[in-house]
Amino acid sequence: MKVNNKPTRTIWEKENRDVVVIDQRLLPFEFKTLDITTVEEMADVILDMVVRGAGLIGASAGYGMALATRQAITNENPLESLSKYGDLLKGTRPTAVNLAWAVDRQLENLKDVKKENLIDEAYKLARIIADEDEAFCRQIGQHGLEIIQKIYKKKNSKINILTHCNAGWLAFVDYGSATAPMYTAHDSGIPIHVWVDETRPRNQGASLTAWELGQHGVEHTVIPDNAGGHLMQHGMVDLVIVGADRVTRNGDAANKIGTYLKALSAVDNDVPFYVALPSSTIDWETSDGVKNIPIEQRSQDEVKYMRGICENKVSEVLILPESSPCANYGFDVTPARLITALITDRGVIKATENELLMHYPEQK
Amino acid sequence: MKVNNKPTRTIWEKENRDVVVIDQRLLPFEFKTLDITTVEEMADVILDMVVRGAGLIGASAGYGMALATRQAITNENPLESLSKYGDLLKGTRPTAVNLAWAVDRQLENLKDVKKENLIDEAYKLARIIADEDEAFCRQIGQHGLEIIQKIYKKKNSKINILTHCNAGWLAFVDYGSATAPMYTAHDSGIPIHVWVDETRPRNQGASLTAWELGQHGVEHTVIPDNAGGHLMQHGMVDLVIVGADRVTRNGDAANKIGTYLKALSAVDNDVPFYVALPSSTIDWETSDGVKNIPIEQRSQDEVKYMRGICENKVSEVLILPESSPCANYGFDVTPARLITALITDRGVIKATENELLMHYPEQK
Repeated sequence: MKVNNKPTRTIWEKENRDVVVIDQRLLPFEFKTLDITTVEEMADVILDMVVRGAGLIGASAGYGMALATRQAITNENPLESLSKYGDLLKGTRPTAVNLAWAVDRQLENLKDVKKENLIDEAYKLARIIADEDEAFCRQIGQHGLEIIQKIYKKKNSKINILTHCNAGWLAFVDYGSATAPMYTAHDSGIPIHVWVDETRPRNQGASLTAWELGQHGVEHTVIPDNAGGHLMQHGMVDLVIVGADRVTRNGDAANKIGTYLKALSAVDNDVPFYVALPSSTIDWETSDGVKNIPIEQRSQDEVKYMRGICENKVSEVLILPESSPCANYGFDVTPARLITALITDRGVIKATENELLMHYPEQK
Repeated sequence: MKVNNKPTRTIWEKENRDVVVIDQRLLPFEFKTLDITTVEEMADVILDMVVRGAGLIGASAGYGMALATRQAITNENPLESLSKYGDLLKGTRPTAVNLAWAVDRQLENLKDVKKENLIDEAYKLARIIADEDEAFCRQIGQHGLEIIQKIYKKKNSKINILTHCNAGWLAFVDYGSATAPMYTAHDSGIPIHVWVDETRPRNQGASLTAWELGQHGVEHTVIPDNAGGHLMQHGMVDLVIVGADRVTRNGDAANKIGTYLKALSAVDNDVPFYVALPSSTIDWETSDGVKNIPIEQRSQDEVKYMRGICENKVSEVLILPESSPCANYGFDVTPARLITALITDRGVIKATENELLMHYPEQK
């Protein structure tokens, strides 16, 4: 998507094969890129959340292993060395499924490659991993576009879409999941306006989604997480599209805390509620997400302190009584019964086990 | 309720008849009181939101008129002068119903009073207005206590109550509306724990409700507004009690934006959802609140900037891209169908026109 009017991905190669990423910790206040020259530096940027989001972490790991080959070939046994570099990357965010998957894919692919071809092969695969991620998101965008087109045909005026958190291109290589249908609709000329939930406590909506929509020229308005119900009661939302961290076999969707409340409101007001996700997000081993998906509890400080800019300096302010304890649950689970459909790279799928299996027969 | 272990109201008289209020703008970071010596000063503290909340604004206006008598008696025509002071007070927050009501009640009461008795009479009525407010809230507390006692009898362990915004004693003279049942239960020895919704964008939950519960020794945890649904899905909320800005004849309740989302979640998870209010909050002229209650839109800056403390100084930080627009709707309306019952000073009343009229036969 565009940044300062220039098409941009979240990760790319330079001619000298260094890798460039956006320092997402500085957004929305500053757009700065970082040159990554070693696998250790890539491990650091994953660990420090300079890069974040399932798709982008996968692509970063792919490129991390490519950078590793430049270092490994100076060793007697490059494969042994690559395996250690892989462990280094995997250790940065142990629960990120895409990270381990990308590292293992590189190791598997490189295991029979001659030393002189290691670097080329690793970069080739890193590119494929990134391109695949973009392709999945582009397909989500195409399938989501059909939904928006249908609503637009009926309404014939600006389409209001509500989203929660950042399931945007910043979390992937390009397009994003929840945002892919929005960018695709916008680029195809359908007038859209996005209500962006602030998404407390980490404000990914206000800081990341608002920034990326603004940079690409998509009309949007930031709202407190409390506002969506009122907007839906008054016909100001035509559809909701959110991302997902995990979707169970029966269609329950774990996503950023607060998603469930928006789904309830959507159902109460006959607003269609869609969850957009690449196939890799489906957890075929789990059913009944509300009961079975463990919900991470995060640091109280994310609730207690708010990051913002004051006198041109990024600062954190304490926003509640020092002595009041906080709770900080990272996600909630929206039961499948509240979801109109899942928008995936394989099409728009009703959130039921039967319908999912029809589109993923290999999982039967 | 208690502050620094000392029973405290939000407004009181000194021996010299100056009036003392808490500077609520400094909470939760600093507890500071202000001595008010003139009606002009009282008008300023109402205008600047040093004091806020329906009940407290009414009591402040009552005392404002008492202060005004000290100034008016030096004039030839004290009643004419009092009427001008009344207009000054009313002009500070024109939509605050209790403000005009308290001023008019003072003017009506003073109109046949001899000059030498004006001050005594005005202070007497100011005291009555404040005491009545406290009495209404105490009765809400008693009726709410019965609800909590019933749940406690069944559960026989700590009762978890979720609340939104600040319908606490800080908004009244004492006890509060939504908090009255909590304080009454706590003081009667029932173990309770309160989930305090942060309440974006103005954070009245995190800053005021958390502070007052903490000062009175009530166990509580601050949560992002997004968290309530997850907590209710997992049996971590036994009941919800919120306040109201306006309740219509048929039982619809306008309250701080986001209340409706909590009501939806309560119904979806069989959690009882109560709205606590003094009788004066009922708007007998209006039915169908979702359709007919106008919702105030407030400044974008309340969403864009967050107030907090940084290096011992209260600062405001910008938390989203400067160029992203925001929307800031102050309230939403929870339809009566989602409300288990209204907790009023006249008892616990089902949220229907028939049941309301049974308790308020004078409105038939």
